[in-house]
Amino acid sequence: MVPYNAPLQDMRFVMNNIAELDKIAALPGYEMAERDLVDQILEEANKLARDVLAPLNFPGDRQGASVENGVVRTPDGFPDAYRQFIEGGWNGVPFEEEFGGQGLPWLIQTALHEMWQAANVSFGLCPLLTQGAIEALSAHGTDEQKAVYLPKLIEGTWTGTMNLTEPQAGSDVGALKTRAEAQGNGIYKITGTKIYITYGDQDFSENVVHLVLARLTDAPAGTRGISLFVVPKFIPNADGSPGERNDLRVVSIEKKLGIHGSPTCVMSYGDNGGATGYLLGEENKGMACMFTMMNNARLAVGLQGVSISDRAYQQAVSYARDRVQSRAVEGSSGPVAIINHPDVRRMLTEMRAKVEAMRCMTYWTAALLDRSKREPAAEDRHKAFLLLDVMTPVCKAWCTDQGVALSSVGVQIHGGMGFVEETGAAQHYRDSRINPIYEGTNGIQAMDLLGRKLIGHNGVAMELLIREIKEDLPMLEDGSRVKDALLQGLSDLEEATQFMMQTFPDDRAKASAGAVPYLDLVATVVGGWMMAKSAAIASEQAPTANGDGAFLEGKAVTARFYADHVLARSGSLKHAVIDGSEGVLGLAFDLF
Amino acid sequence: MVPYNAPLQDMRFVMNNIAELDKIAALPGYEMAERDLVDQILEEANKLARDVLAPLNFPGDRQGASVENGVVRTPDGFPDAYRQFIEGGWNGVPFEEEFGGQGLPWLIQTALHEMWQAANVSFGLCPLLTQGAIEALSAHGTDEQKAVYLPKLIEGTWTGTMNLTEPQAGSDVGALKTRAEAQGNGIYKITGTKIYITYGDQDFSENVVHLVLARLTDAPAGTRGISLFVVPKFIPNADGSPGERNDLRVVSIEKKLGIHGSPTCVMSYGDNGGATGYLLGEENKGMACMFTMMNNARLAVGLQGVSISDRAYQQAVSYARDRVQSRAVEGSSGPVAIINHPDVRRMLTEMRAKVEAMRCMTYWTAALLDRSKREPAAEDRHKAFLLLDVMTPVCKAWCTDQGVALSSVGVQIHGGMGFVEETGAAQHYRDSRINPIYEGTNGIQAMDLLGRKLIGHNGVAMELLIREIKEDLPMLEDGSRVKDALLQGLSDLEEATQFMMQTFPDDRAKASAGAVPYLDLVATVVGGWMMAKSAAIASEQAPTANGDGAFLEGKAVTARFYADHVLARSGSLKHAVIDGSEGVLGLAFDLF
Repeated sequence: MVPYNAPLQDMRFVMNNIAELDKIAALPGYEMAERDLVDQILEEANKLARDVLAPLNFPGDRQGASVENGVVRTPDGFPDAYRQFIEGGWNGVPFEEEFGGQGLPWLIQTALHEMWQAANVSFGLCPLLTQGAIEALSAHGTDEQKAVYLPKLIEGTWTGTMNLTEPQAGSDVGALKTRAEAQGNGIYKITGTKIYITYGDQDFSENVVHLVLARLTDAPAGTRGISLFVVPKFIPNADGSPGERNDLRVVSIEKKLGIHGSPTCVMSYGDNGGATGYLLGEENKGMACMFTMMNNARLAVGLQGVSISDRAYQQAVSYARDRVQSRAVEGSSGPVAIINHPDVRRMLTEMRAKVEAMRCMTYWTAALLDRSKREPAAEDRHKAFLLLDVMTPVCKAWCTDQGVALSSVGVQIHGGMGFVEETGAAQHYRDSRINPIYEGTNGIQAMDLLGRKLIGHNGVAMELLIREIKEDLPMLEDGSRVKDALLQGLSDLEEATQFMMQTFPDDRAKASAGAVPYLDLVATVVGGWMMAKSAAIASEQAPTANGDGAFLEGKAVTARFYADHVLARSGSLKHAVIDGSEGVLGLAFDLF
Repeated sequence: MVPYNAPLQDMRFVMNNIAELDKIAALPGYEMAERDLVDQILEEANKLARDVLAPLNFPGDRQGASVENGVVRTPDGFPDAYRQFIEGGWNGVPFEEEFGGQGLPWLIQTALHEMWQAANVSFGLCPLLTQGAIEALSAHGTDEQKAVYLPKLIEGTWTGTMNLTEPQAGSDVGALKTRAEAQGNGIYKITGTKIYITYGDQDFSENVVHLVLARLTDAPAGTRGISLFVVPKFIPNADGSPGERNDLRVVSIEKKLGIHGSPTCVMSYGDNGGATGYLLGEENKGMACMFTMMNNARLAVGLQGVSISDRAYQQAVSYARDRVQSRAVEGSSGPVAIINHPDVRRMLTEMRAKVEAMRCMTYWTAALLDRSKREPAAEDRHKAFLLLDVMTPVCKAWCTDQGVALSSVGVQIHGGMGFVEETGAAQHYRDSRINPIYEGTNGIQAMDLLGRKLIGHNGVAMELLIREIKEDLPMLEDGSRVKDALLQGLSDLEEATQFMMQTFPDDRAKASAGAVPYLDLVATVVGGWMMAKSAAIASEQAPTANGDGAFLEGKAVTARFYADHVLARSGSLKHAVIDGSEGVLGLAFDLF
């Protein structure tokens, strides 16, 4: 297998120049996040990702997770890798020091997550789900709940899960039927079946803390009657140690297209009278609590798109350098490595340019998360929150769509070898396919962007985003192709935004028909902005660069590629938004 | 599993109106191809596809083909299905009556192939490969060779294979090393290893006729030193029955991403001194002979893109009608089937519109094949040949890229269920991924279009195509969005074509950097032309339609969708062709 090596040079470039690490390190409580320390953290993380997690990715796929008599077995090597992961303290990076975390910015956690997911997405899902549980408990837990669960979850000896989906309740969470009966003393009996539970169990933690959405017996229908419960596999004793086995079990695990190493479980709660659960937050406010973790999870899933794309890119570059086939198109004395063929370069540059754009987008969004929590002025926090709110569905949907598209390009570069599983290129194509689906399908993300983030904020958040872009225009060279493409993209975005603001209130179906092209347009333009900005900054830095000169000069090329091959589509996306609904909504129901 | 049912209504519409079946039936020797007979053939074929082949598609994927001690086993049911296939006479549809074929037009064969590949692509590959062998033998075989092989291959009791690829010789066929030593009497000893041999063996024919590219001992290097040989598994006796076992064997079969039911073999020739082979055509002219079969095979692979897309579409429609989830965006009393949600409609309409466009494109190209063989006037044959020559790589590449994209959309419509293998949606996503790779990667197709078909014909063939489109403009409504989009697309295509004609002679790398976007542009505009034409014809026919009214009215909607969501990209594709090379070629080799 082709080894993985984290692209530290580009990660640092994006952290420093696009996400502005120095400004994050200036926020209260983040003072330790200086460049030198961050560099060390990234170097250390790369060792774990490269040497421990990445080599397990391919065999983990081949072997897969399994279940026998309700006991889940992860692939060989996963339990030991997890031990190394938590012993290194990697599970607690962004969490409160009070409970054993390291209190580092989410921006850093995001760079680390990129490595974990690129090295081994099936493995990386476990800490990602635990992160969600930690966030929900931190935000909504009682002091007692925090004291019992947070230290264990943060050190990683216990893991967390999210239990939303049921067979009849997928995107429509409000349709869920799992019941919760109050027993007094804050204890509830939970009964029901949940599906698609990532790491519903495994063989490397001493306890599993399930966060379960359920409906109280007297609750109103729909999403307003949903509450969130903590349902541990082993009920903690008074001293915090795992005690009695709870009434919950893994029924089966799914046979999936990809992420075979990650056990996706069907969970049954309460086969013997009801699983013991504890209310988290208020009764009937479960959806709001769930969204606390879901927003961050959405950003993390978007990042999986970046990660898989970069892994596929590294593998494709390696193959294209080694594989000798045919003479050069402009003539050569003999056959050449295929990286020399223009169309292979086109494919590799597409992968590289989009990975760079996605990395900028997700890291910048992670910095917004930090700023939304820590900016000293309420106004600045709110501004960061609004931008974060817009960017979360954009990152989730666009980066995961690109993950699918680019892992497919990775297969293509391998030719026939790409279709043979032993190469490993096909695994990325299979693994990446879940990302546009889970944590809210990309269609749901587009509706979230349109309904909650654009219309819900009355256009203010999108205006802020557009203003951010415009503020950077002066640093771009007038008349350059990169700037012209961005100006055109901005104009298209403004026009499409205006159309949506006018159309949504009166004709939701018409506006919704354009929701996905609209999200694509936002992402395409934001990516173009960041690529242009990267190139401008790189060009400033190049003369004084120490050994980074070639890297920095490359930014102008990938920005140019992005402008001509990606951002150039902004006009057609605007068109699909504004004129596209007739075609979308016009076909008679029976005709399909 | 969701059943397959051939879309006979649309197949007939495209055959009659776009491929102009009546004109094909007016060609000498094709008089029997009247609409009534064709209708009967399609109805009968649908029964076999729907009732026999389609139900084996999913279990065939799960079980897969296997090999033990050199003996290949196809999935349960495949041998019996093959028996029914050949007993029905389906193997010999387009071939010469002299050798037992039915002498029907390729247009009809194309519609049938669509069904076989949609029903079960792993199964359908076997007759597809046999077809290639029949064509090569028909075109280049001696009378004796024809007499021995053609009747068996056409009835299907023997099957055929194509042996091109070797580990070091994929896209670069000229690098192959398999040797052929003349023994006198037209007999050669063949020695070497071939990989990726589709249906290199199976358990349902009494003989396998391998067409093997090999190099004579004294042959010049490269493609000019390659000859084609007939290498039968069992050497035919004087009476034509299969005789002595030849010195060739299946070494192993590949573990692939998809098409698991189809055995993809590593073949070894001459382990015991040399396999007996017979020269087909002239010495050192093997590449030309291979292209005889390859062009048709490329059209057939393009058709696989149409087939898988349609199968995925049918499955997605079925799921979207059944799956109830969330209220309608404009309000509803309760949750509705997801087919009502605008974004699901967008995805389904994208699938439908593109399938229609691809069906038009491939059927029209098949009609060009018939016309290139049978038009009475040499000038008309040549004109059809030129158009066919341009359209073959366009069909192969664009339709297979769409097959990947649309099977991915099919997965997406299923949500979480799409990622679980039991649904079957994921199989299409896996199966379709081979199509952009085999029979010449899509990058190779784009270079074929640019170098051989555009430049090689000095622009004449592309001019002919553009003229064909312009001739249909008067039938379109002035000022309509569909016509405006087509006019814009035409203008973009003309500009990009002119750029390529000027650039290629002086700067091959620069032109080649735009080869794939150029092919995409040609396909996008041709698709737009055919969708517009379909809508115009349907609108004329609608008033007098018997029960087809709703179907015909739908053509205006899908044409509109295509114009706004697909053809609207023509400007950005032109841009990628003309301005895109700097980004493609600019990155320093070491930087990747």
